[in-house]
Amino acid sequence: MSEAAYVAVDWGTSSFRLWLMDRQDQVLAERRSGEGMTSASQTGFSTVLNMHLQAVQAGHSLPVIICGMAGARQGWVEAGYVDVPAPLSSVLKGAVPVNGESRDIRILPGIAQRSEDMPDVMRGEETQLLGSSQQGGSRLVCMPGTHSKWVSVAGETVKGFSSFMTGEVFEALSKHTILKHAMAEAQSFDGHHPAFVAALQAAHARPAMFTNLIFTCRSGQLLHGLDATAAAARLSGILIGTEMAGGLSIADRNTKIQLVASGKLQALYEAAFAALDLDFSTVDADLAVRKGLAAAAHSLFSVAHN
Amino acid sequence: MSEAAYVAVDWGTSSFRLWLMDRQDQVLAERRSGEGMTSASQTGFSTVLNMHLQAVQAGHSLPVIICGMAGARQGWVEAGYVDVPAPLSSVLKGAVPVNGESRDIRILPGIAQRSEDMPDVMRGEETQLLGSSQQGGSRLVCMPGTHSKWVSVAGETVKGFSSFMTGEVFEALSKHTILKHAMAEAQSFDGHHPAFVAALQAAHARPAMFTNLIFTCRSGQLLHGLDATAAAARLSGILIGTEMAGGLSIADRNTKIQLVASGKLQALYEAAFAALDLDFSTVDADLAVRKGLAAAAHSLFSVAHN
Repeated sequence: MSEAAYVAVDWGTSSFRLWLMDRQDQVLAERRSGEGMTSASQTGFSTVLNMHLQAVQAGHSLPVIICGMAGARQGWVEAGYVDVPAPLSSVLKGAVPVNGESRDIRILPGIAQRSEDMPDVMRGEETQLLGSSQQGGSRLVCMPGTHSKWVSVAGETVKGFSSFMTGEVFEALSKHTILKHAMAEAQSFDGHHPAFVAALQAAHARPAMFTNLIFTCRSGQLLHGLDATAAAARLSGILIGTEMAGGLSIADRNTKIQLVASGKLQALYEAAFAALDLDFSTVDADLAVRKGLAAAAHSLFSVAHN
Repeated sequence: MSEAAYVAVDWGTSSFRLWLMDRQDQVLAERRSGEGMTSASQTGFSTVLNMHLQAVQAGHSLPVIICGMAGARQGWVEAGYVDVPAPLSSVLKGAVPVNGESRDIRILPGIAQRSEDMPDVMRGEETQLLGSSQQGGSRLVCMPGTHSKWVSVAGETVKGFSSFMTGEVFEALSKHTILKHAMAEAQSFDGHHPAFVAALQAAHARPAMFTNLIFTCRSGQLLHGLDATAAAARLSGILIGTEMAGGLSIADRNTKIQLVASGKLQALYEAAFAALDLDFSTVDADLAVRKGLAAAAHSLFSVAHN
């Protein structure tokens, strides 16, 4: 086994992921847990990190690079924001050291868009952008999730971005409105479910009907016997279709679309882009965050590639 | 005091309103309570109604006309739906008698739109439409509420309509998402609050940004110190602006707009129409439902105007 050179950590609101990496950026060991910011702010960030470092037998002098909510005001050490237009290299320069630890630990900043009418923030996604960087050209990056991000990138500079509360709104509507009756006992579905595809296309074509379309999950059940799984697929299609109409509007029509996602969301958004007849390329989100953390490690620590 | 001729009842999901009426449709007595369908289905609809009839000393032979959720499947007696295109007179013809009661009691049906892609239902609003009827011409009726209705009416016929879950989505988002942090301790606001007006116009112009705009209630707090009341006003503006973009799209641009509302919602929607530079006329919703019930009483019972 090759020698460990640094440790990479993606520390989100509700999840913690750590990788022990060699100097060629190969993963030597991995840890995943639910000790995100919310949990770690109770236990102590240092305690959580050191426990996982011990578990992978990380040497005492190995440096650690962290991205995500650990750098939020309510996180471990506030890492602030780089403002748009933000060259991705400025994210590396804004890394903040964690004092009082025996090893070199740095937390990457987020990116902020301080415009008066479209204020927005990201924390963690900037590292995925760094790790999914392409040579030159413009791209519109779609990063689905609880708060999906759509990011307009020109070359190596983040021009602007918009968060869409797709995942969280799905949860709130399906659990805390009349729609819960239509969706009780829904089974899992995928992006090829006809109710998902039809709702996606309808919402993309008429996003102004959003709060009406969601009601059809209920009225469709009353009048047409729509089943619970189809109702859930319809709600998901409406939310993603509306998000896509909005996300696509922040860049020029011909900008290349890059999907940064993994797992179930990747499959769902790939099906959605296909249903809207849109060309896109996919980058695995897990790989992207690791590549971004690796780029930061090589820039900030004395880790040579060979 | 003139003699009572009939009793009019608006029986919603969570509210009960009863009026003792004379033959000139003047209100002799009124009862309001929270014994809507949800509560009455426990207590018993007959028990609730008779208690209120006694309270206003309604004669034993006085007939009762009812609209609203009392006619739903889970209500007192199912009164079904009249399908669009629905002449308003067909609502009167579809009234269903309640059997086993000592007096003549009729429940008015709702209206259904059975289209495959835009299924919709109303129950109670059809009676307000009846009571806000104008001589000839087309109108686009906006009826704000938990589930706002926008109704396209040509002459005396309901052509089509769309429900928007505006009120319920406001509740779910402000209580069960990250937005609750931005809106905790919000004070009351009205339709002239600058945050309401700006958000209304932004959402009306770009409804595809709905799930993004709502996020700005949170990011605006993080980056610009948006206060809780302004965040709540912004969320309300986004929801109503999106609803208006959708509702206006169901009728021709030049169709006369009629707002059927009362109280705080009336003021909010009047301010919203004004902020969008739209002409409209207002009909009081309480008066409209009473006029609609009166029209039904005169049609169904032997109540002459003099």
